[in-house]
Amino acid sequence: MTTNTKRLSWLPFLKADIPASLTTSEQIARFELDQALPALAAGKSAELNVSADMGESYTIEANDDVYTITGGESGVLYGTYALIMCLAAGHPVPQGTQQPRYALRMLNCWDNADGSIERGYAGRSLFFEGGKFDYDPVRLRQLGRMLASVGLNVMCINNVNVRYPADQLIESWLPQLAELAAIYRPFGVKLMVSIDYSAPMRHGVPTADPLDPQVQEWWNKQAEIVYKAVPDLAGFLVKADSEGRPGPFTYGRNHAEGANMLARALKPFGGKLVWRCFVYNCRQDWRDRKTDRPMAAYQHYAYLDGQFEDNVILQIKNGPFDFQVREPVSPLLYAMPKTDLAIEFQLAQEYTGQQIDIFAMPPMWREIFDDMPADKVMSIAAVTNLGRDDNYCGHPFAAVNLFGYGLFAWDPSIQPEKIIRLWTKLTYGMDQLSEDALVSLLMGSRRTYEKYTAPLGLCWMVTPNQHYGPNPSGYEYQAWGTYHKADREAVGIDRTAAGTGYVCQYPEEFQKLYGSLETCPDELILWFHRLRYDYVMRDGRTLIQRIYDDHFEGLEETKAMAETLKTLPLPSPDREEALERMNRQLFNAREWCDIVNNFFHNYSGIDDAHGRTIY
Amino acid sequence: MTTNTKRLSWLPFLKADIPASLTTSEQIARFELDQALPALAAGKSAELNVSADMGESYTIEANDDVYTITGGESGVLYGTYALIMCLAAGHPVPQGTQQPRYALRMLNCWDNADGSIERGYAGRSLFFEGGKFDYDPVRLRQLGRMLASVGLNVMCINNVNVRYPADQLIESWLPQLAELAAIYRPFGVKLMVSIDYSAPMRHGVPTADPLDPQVQEWWNKQAEIVYKAVPDLAGFLVKADSEGRPGPFTYGRNHAEGANMLARALKPFGGKLVWRCFVYNCRQDWRDRKTDRPMAAYQHYAYLDGQFEDNVILQIKNGPFDFQVREPVSPLLYAMPKTDLAIEFQLAQEYTGQQIDIFAMPPMWREIFDDMPADKVMSIAAVTNLGRDDNYCGHPFAAVNLFGYGLFAWDPSIQPEKIIRLWTKLTYGMDQLSEDALVSLLMGSRRTYEKYTAPLGLCWMVTPNQHYGPNPSGYEYQAWGTYHKADREAVGIDRTAAGTGYVCQYPEEFQKLYGSLETCPDELILWFHRLRYDYVMRDGRTLIQRIYDDHFEGLEETKAMAETLKTLPLPSPDREEALERMNRQLFNAREWCDIVNNFFHNYSGIDDAHGRTIY
Repeated sequence: MTTNTKRLSWLPFLKADIPASLTTSEQIARFELDQALPALAAGKSAELNVSADMGESYTIEANDDVYTITGGESGVLYGTYALIMCLAAGHPVPQGTQQPRYALRMLNCWDNADGSIERGYAGRSLFFEGGKFDYDPVRLRQLGRMLASVGLNVMCINNVNVRYPADQLIESWLPQLAELAAIYRPFGVKLMVSIDYSAPMRHGVPTADPLDPQVQEWWNKQAEIVYKAVPDLAGFLVKADSEGRPGPFTYGRNHAEGANMLARALKPFGGKLVWRCFVYNCRQDWRDRKTDRPMAAYQHYAYLDGQFEDNVILQIKNGPFDFQVREPVSPLLYAMPKTDLAIEFQLAQEYTGQQIDIFAMPPMWREIFDDMPADKVMSIAAVTNLGRDDNYCGHPFAAVNLFGYGLFAWDPSIQPEKIIRLWTKLTYGMDQLSEDALVSLLMGSRRTYEKYTAPLGLCWMVTPNQHYGPNPSGYEYQAWGTYHKADREAVGIDRTAAGTGYVCQYPEEFQKLYGSLETCPDELILWFHRLRYDYVMRDGRTLIQRIYDDHFEGLEETKAMAETLKTLPLPSPDREEALERMNRQLFNAREWCDIVNNFFHNYSGIDDAHGRTIY
Repeated sequence: MTTNTKRLSWLPFLKADIPASLTTSEQIARFELDQALPALAAGKSAELNVSADMGESYTIEANDDVYTITGGESGVLYGTYALIMCLAAGHPVPQGTQQPRYALRMLNCWDNADGSIERGYAGRSLFFEGGKFDYDPVRLRQLGRMLASVGLNVMCINNVNVRYPADQLIESWLPQLAELAAIYRPFGVKLMVSIDYSAPMRHGVPTADPLDPQVQEWWNKQAEIVYKAVPDLAGFLVKADSEGRPGPFTYGRNHAEGANMLARALKPFGGKLVWRCFVYNCRQDWRDRKTDRPMAAYQHYAYLDGQFEDNVILQIKNGPFDFQVREPVSPLLYAMPKTDLAIEFQLAQEYTGQQIDIFAMPPMWREIFDDMPADKVMSIAAVTNLGRDDNYCGHPFAAVNLFGYGLFAWDPSIQPEKIIRLWTKLTYGMDQLSEDALVSLLMGSRRTYEKYTAPLGLCWMVTPNQHYGPNPSGYEYQAWGTYHKADREAVGIDRTAAGTGYVCQYPEEFQKLYGSLETCPDELILWFHRLRYDYVMRDGRTLIQRIYDDHFEGLEETKAMAETLKTLPLPSPDREEALERMNRQLFNAREWCDIVNNFFHNYSGIDDAHGRTIY
């Protein structure tokens, strides 16, 4: 029994590595209980009852000195971790049958075969290096433990932008894929792979047209081969016709035709075909003011509702742009009642601080779930923030997002503070004052980040390509369709019915909410409306003053966060890591504040009402 | 005798490769005359008289049927090419003794050992690939022929940013360096190498402090080793304390102390130490309005005048920024009368179209030479535009810059049209109308490029890092010290005595010329002055209208160039290459015109007086 040297964030009390000899969920549950109970509940014992028909559900009964966990194969494992975490946190065990809201609770890894991770901020890939599989099985079991502890059950291991030789995952790398699947199977985690739509063309098929029988035949056969190697593969994930990826548009086919062909190949084996809806024109001419990128997904998909095979899942980003600090909920989520939908989040902090700046996502997700049609979305996915760093997530606090995502995927009615407090308690076990301080810091971190970067719905002011740090006009003349069109009078895009008409893609209540200046939330006002700098907001301040105020507040709040951080009794090396990154966050916040204020002052010529320095 | 398949631009009539067996300048001269005379002057012959004391000078006597070329070892070769080109162009042979104005006529290759070229736009390195020497000796002799034909006599073969393993050039790679030197020796071209100031520290010396005896000893010994391998090496080129390079500042030493240490090591062997003056703070805070980057070189060097060893040459870029489309002449050229100076040009079109857009430099150089102190500059250098492309320069017309540079280095009183016409005649031998059309196109190409990119002295609106295409605010918040500070009222930096004081670095006549709005040339007005958009220029138009007009004119002129180009009877593949690149230039010109006009319209709110579309 070796002791792991890597940090497991919210599971610090599970000190022993999981032995390779354990190959069932029950064995792992037993192992975890045996090491946890003596420390967390001395004198108590636990019994496991596997009841196959319970699947992922479980119950926990606490009788005298015995906890009885009853559940399906994964259910007992989930129940085990739930029990351990309750004991560690000093919480009562949950009453009644626990079951997940979403059947598929997916992670998407954007790992490349060369070992790099697209938008990865926690080191190199845990799975690949140098164009091949290259992993430490001890660490992968640690990861399996982390995922199972928060109930995540599908992991797509490779980047949706499939580049050579990652296409070999469903070809010559199948034996290694099967080995990896065997590692994760006892944790209740099924693998998924991203595939390249044009794959048949590297095998003598002259086309990738989904209506071509040769293409269908190639995929049918390939699915058979893949499922022979990995019978419980969750399915394929596809990014098609997006940002240069091949897809059915090349052949004049729509995305139902494109997805269904693959879905039919997977159906005999119970596989799902997850099809991303992140499709837009990424070669837009900046002179073109009619095309409005957020409208693209709806335009490409809504009319296809009802035309998809029943094992197709359309995976839709939470907002219509691309994981900005704040976006309105994607209207496409409301537009396809006859289709299985998954919502996609991004734990990787691409636009949200890159795991340097603190950005706890649960409060944001709460808002998104509140705006989302509860009964339309049947699956949930998130781009991971994981990598080979010792702490897995780059910033020790970034783990709260992986943790919180799992809890939301299990029960989307959960409150963000509950998640953040539980994570804080489990991870650091600090005194109450310190715990309160860190919970408060994390709870406010997204709003603070938003204030110094992108308040009032102003997004895309990031440095192009890199997406960290400010560059207010960086995207204004680029081909990505992401403009704010600031000039000396006004800023923002009119997306009302009188403007691009984007708002008309929503159900009526949202049309009214967002379409009217009386009701549109301040935080999204420049997302939906173009306003003059002297426009008077509902709180009596002018727009320009709000821009200044929010940025200054964001910077001041960051300074306060830095002070709080210094006072916390964090263990080493979390403390050193957090403080070092906070220095970078402070620099970043100051740059954002001063640059964006300078930018708008140059345009508006209006001074700050409080006489603060605008450079 | 093989026939070369690569194109030699202005020497198309020299069809035979130069045999490796020729090892003296006289042998090469004989070879070239034997192949050229029958075609260019049937029935005539040539005699060569080598007179060692004439060095690089030569005379050509034309008597009846015999040309007699008399000169030093290189002189006869220069005379030979001069004769051949006169015959090819139908010009009379030059009268009297011809001798070069500058003793060192240098090319700086920014080639990296990995085969890439920093700011290279003509393919991979001709010298290196994969971390080692890797060249085609046939092509290198072609290059030697091209250089000798325009009198260039020093070539520094590696990037001034010396990265591993390029430091091996003066260590383990000396045998190969000697082989390369042997290839170029008969062409009158001496090699030079860029060195890494911190080299001793990789050999057990604990410091690179120029005043440390161990450091001095290491360099003295290394120079001895180097000159044993390559006795006629021209010397070392050094970029120190610049953009992250190591240098004497690390040890609290000034650049005279830093350069002299190396110069003393080279002096016993007749070597020159060429020290670049491109030193400035590249970590400037954009909030800092006092630091003015163009002032940096003068501040670092002027006070050191008289303190340099006599074999030190300070190499100064023509303008105080960095090879912008137009800059005032560097004031440092006037500030160091007791020091040997070299002026540095850049043939590589880093900021000037990247060998996609046409930009013939001779008209620009004419202006620079006219503004330069004639008697203060004793050497001349240029960053090359060369690479492994079949035509050596990426764009077939870019060769005019290599050609013209050689002619200017030989005789800086030359007129640009003479150069461009001669190049056109030699390269294409077209009918008179076509020749006139191409000469006119090339003569105007810099002004056209300037108009659509950076008229009125506005520079640094390029895409950061890449330096091609427009990004008007791309550098405004960066650390490079390159700002225009546009706002809703005005644009430009006040560099007069009332502003940053930059203008005070000049002799009085330039202070007056640039410092006054009455006399400052329009083309530099925003370089020296901050002006309101409604400022009325001397021609009666407002500044904003001039911005619009110049950009529209630049675009229209480019369209006209494209039309002209189509009519020219250029040979293949020059024609196809030129037309393909012109399509990209047209796109670029349209982007520049529309983006910069949009940018200033957004700030000023002032419409174009002629009602043209500003997007």
